[in-house]
Amino acid sequence: MSEVFDALKFDERGLVAAVAQQHDTGEVLMLAWMNREAIAETLASGQACYFSRSRNRLWRKGESSGQTQRLVELRIDCDGDAVLLLVDQTGVACHTGRRSCFYTAVQDGGLVEIAAPVVASETLYGN
Amino acid sequence: MSEVFDALKFDERGLVAAVAQQHDTGEVLMLAWMNREAIAETLASGQACYFSRSRNRLWRKGESSGQTQRLVELRIDCDGDAVLLLVDQTGVACHTGRRSCFYTAVQDGGLVEIAAPVVASETLYGN
Repeated sequence: MSEVFDALKFDERGLVAAVAQQHDTGEVLMLAWMNREAIAETLASGQACYFSRSRNRLWRKGESSGQTQRLVELRIDCDGDAVLLLVDQTGVACHTGRRSCFYTAVQDGGLVEIAAPVVASETLYGN
Repeated sequence: MSEVFDALKFDERGLVAAVAQQHDTGEVLMLAWMNREAIAETLASGQACYFSRSRNRLWRKGESSGQTQRLVELRIDCDGDAVLLLVDQTGVACHTGRRSCFYTAVQDGGLVEIAAPVVASETLYGN
């Protein structure tokens, strides 16, 4: 594992950017952040674990919603400040109930919603 | 354009994370950063322009190497602190001459190079 951490350059907050991609379809699901502990836990457990900047703690993806991400492969970029997680997403990645967090497109200078929720947010998190 | 900027939450450095993905194959090419000016220029020119943190200036992708990225669509994530650029990559995205910057995989706790350069770095940038 030391080889992995040697290849990573954590920023002043101790974080690297993490892109989650559905391993078979190539869909980019979300962008989150990982600290050393999140990287270690993800590799050890085989389930994506991020660091939540808003909650300032580890965020085991799906801990509330059940929408977990099984790790297929973790890749590191050339300068070590970003990782790509190839995952198998259970259900949806976005807290809005959409498959991907990137559901807003810029078209003709304005915003267009290009994906609808496939599950209600209340179903994921209760009322 | 104000609608676009209203949807973005730039961090304390004035940046959002930007993921570049090849629009047709789904390959994640790189992760970089954009400030307001980079977003505006990218949308206006139709060519990816990032903000280089190391050089502290706009970085018109391909300005030195010729390896430009034509913008197909820019998408914003649910909390507005990351964008996904669907692009058509000319040549290679990585300065090492590899198609993607994410060419190092973690396998069995160690690092494995999963992609070789398709063009020599010297060819891209001279000697």
